[in-house]
Amino acid sequence: MLKLYFAPGTCALASHIALEEAGADYTTERLDFKINQQNSPEYLEINPKGRVPSLVTDRGVLTETPAMLAYIAQSFPQAKLAPLDDAFAFGQVQAFNSYLCSTVHVAHAHRMRGHRWATEESTFADMKRVVPKSVGASFALIEHKMLRGPWVMGETYTVCDAYLFTLAGWLEGDGVDLSALPRVLDHRTRMAERPAVQKVVQQERG
Amino acid sequence: MLKLYFAPGTCALASHIALEEAGADYTTERLDFKINQQNSPEYLEINPKGRVPSLVTDRGVLTETPAMLAYIAQSFPQAKLAPLDDAFAFGQVQAFNSYLCSTVHVAHAHRMRGHRWATEESTFADMKRVVPKSVGASFALIEHKMLRGPWVMGETYTVCDAYLFTLAGWLEGDGVDLSALPRVLDHRTRMAERPAVQKVVQQERG
Repeated sequence: MLKLYFAPGTCALASHIALEEAGADYTTERLDFKINQQNSPEYLEINPKGRVPSLVTDRGVLTETPAMLAYIAQSFPQAKLAPLDDAFAFGQVQAFNSYLCSTVHVAHAHRMRGHRWATEESTFADMKRVVPKSVGASFALIEHKMLRGPWVMGETYTVCDAYLFTLAGWLEGDGVDLSALPRVLDHRTRMAERPAVQKVVQQERG
Repeated sequence: MLKLYFAPGTCALASHIALEEAGADYTTERLDFKINQQNSPEYLEINPKGRVPSLVTDRGVLTETPAMLAYIAQSFPQAKLAPLDDAFAFGQVQAFNSYLCSTVHVAHAHRMRGHRWATEESTFADMKRVVPKSVGASFALIEHKMLRGPWVMGETYTVCDAYLFTLAGWLEGDGVDLSALPRVLDHRTRMAERPAVQKVVQQERG
């Protein structure tokens, strides 16, 4: 049995959707960021980084969204969530996910988590001002160069779609000009129609 | 035939070492960051992100270090650079690599690449001041919680080792207190003794 630690509004949603799409037997545990539960001694035993998501398996704990998405795809091959038998195509899936975690998510994090990299209030204000542009630029690259349509990798749905949907949910909050991203928004709408996505979004809200 | 685009002093070193360790048939092409060659029209055709590394294959281009490292390991299974037949162990490799790209490398990048997330000179100065602490904290986690020894994953050498060696090469420049990281430094020394690493380091310097 797998157990996913998540918090609403975080990138844990991507793994949550992937588990649901995979038909996995899993449970979830919600962390309350308002009381800093991700840094409680109990949770730091599970994930010493004090972040979500974490996936507890029979073998131990996995962290980091790209690693978890690949693990879910490999553990439930019948769900066909990644091209597992094609190293190049799998590499493309992973390159997309790695871009989301190291560039897109990081650009977004400068709106609320500036304390990771700076100390001054004036810095946090400067960072916040840049977020619409930096997040917008990374999504423009997705819009024009990466998202093949209808799904990220083309005709076949993969774990990339759950991850893109998750980060695209932050666009309004980041103040990005949505009119420049019609294909990303179209993808977001298409994702929101999937039963697995609806179930997971509903559960994270509840 | 594979072709690796790299620049000296960048994270491309990790993939370069992995290609060498894999016994791959590959060539390299050096980009000169001083003349902004990574943003030349020719290179942007290969990698629209204007970053290194890029790996040109017969099927197309792969980017993003964690994706390239997994691709190299999967394409040259005889080199045993990752536990390819064990989804959980492979997930641990990937989680480590993902942490390096999205947390460790990102913390480091605030020393020289603050313009990605801010515009003010005072912000860049603030970011630079925090780098020894933020990079130091991420390496402390590696030192105490991740690096099993003698290699990252324990007894078996993997692509994680090439990646850790690459980022550990930036510690002095980042002003990190090395005395707190004896196991990371020991790993770096052990890596520097490998013939493949010596060959690649020599070539990137040349």
